[in-house]
Amino acid sequence: MAATRNVAVLVGSLRKDSFNRKLAMALKTIAPAPLALEIVEIGQLPLYNQDDDANPPPASATFKKRIAESDAVLFVTPEYNRSVPGVLKNAIDIASRPYGKSAWDGKPGAVISVSPGAIGAFGANHHLRQSLVFLNVPTMTQPEAYIGGAGDLFDDHGAIKKPETKQFLEKFLAAFAHWIEKTAKTPG
Amino acid sequence: MAATRNVAVLVGSLRKDSFNRKLAMALKTIAPAPLALEIVEIGQLPLYNQDDDANPPPASATFKKRIAESDAVLFVTPEYNRSVPGVLKNAIDIASRPYGKSAWDGKPGAVISVSPGAIGAFGANHHLRQSLVFLNVPTMTQPEAYIGGAGDLFDDHGAIKKPETKQFLEKFLAAFAHWIEKTAKTPG
Repeated sequence: MAATRNVAVLVGSLRKDSFNRKLAMALKTIAPAPLALEIVEIGQLPLYNQDDDANPPPASATFKKRIAESDAVLFVTPEYNRSVPGVLKNAIDIASRPYGKSAWDGKPGAVISVSPGAIGAFGANHHLRQSLVFLNVPTMTQPEAYIGGAGDLFDDHGAIKKPETKQFLEKFLAAFAHWIEKTAKTPG
Repeated sequence: MAATRNVAVLVGSLRKDSFNRKLAMALKTIAPAPLALEIVEIGQLPLYNQDDDANPPPASATFKKRIAESDAVLFVTPEYNRSVPGVLKNAIDIASRPYGKSAWDGKPGAVISVSPGAIGAFGANHHLRQSLVFLNVPTMTQPEAYIGGAGDLFDDHGAIKKPETKQFLEKFLAAFAHWIEKTAKTPG
């Protein structure tokens, strides 16, 4: 059996009752055994400033270390203005610097985009993928996950109401577990 | 003669000696008469959180008001990880909310991307344009501005060294002045 893989989950919205956070919490409960999902917070981070590269703020250094120690990364994000939320991109920028010392390098990754609307945050999903190419995060191709209609997705306890969505996400996580085994730097 | 147009200039890097900031400063000195360029700072902004929409932090409210009062917007930005810096996207997100009350709506815009490398931050330039479509910022199409080799662009006083680059930027700003007159909500 594969070793446990620690997956850092980044949520692209800071809203307390964010659909994305709810989904990330729900994913934790349905993830298959080899995957240990944990949300890594990004709301405490300062804005990235290259002048701080030699002596980064403690919150930035701690965040980067947390990413470096993870086995894989899962992005759960809304779309802001047809792109990645600035909040999430800032976190990505922070852990990518200084040049040549990125914490993302080689971590297997996956993207789930979530939106109350019909398009399922497609714009955020693919802008994010462009950055992940550069960051050398081998990002799972199939299945893609564009989760629309998020306003009607959860019951009062935060569980996923629709059986077909829950099944899809279980399939997604199982595929991600395989993807990590195939693409991770260190064998499981 | 056209009325003065107040152009809010947003610089995508917080680095003190940023090439982008230097370029923004140099643009101020060569802008044609109808354009009054002023850098609007973004480094003091908190991370955007939708929970604050009803009662935004003072820095966010002030920034949004400043954008709302401008006649046009000019983005001068580096590329971080093949996309828009999180710092700049955060500022864009802040002034775009709450839904339906965006400060960007209808402001004529232009984009200059700046990089020490050869590609001239193309990735940032076009990711930014995708957001500007959604934000209803009519963004100047030609000339495009991908400024590469930024490490060799300025003299010790911050003036643009290469005559051909200076001429190109003068042409860019003249075209932007025309673009603003053509696309502004209020006649000049």
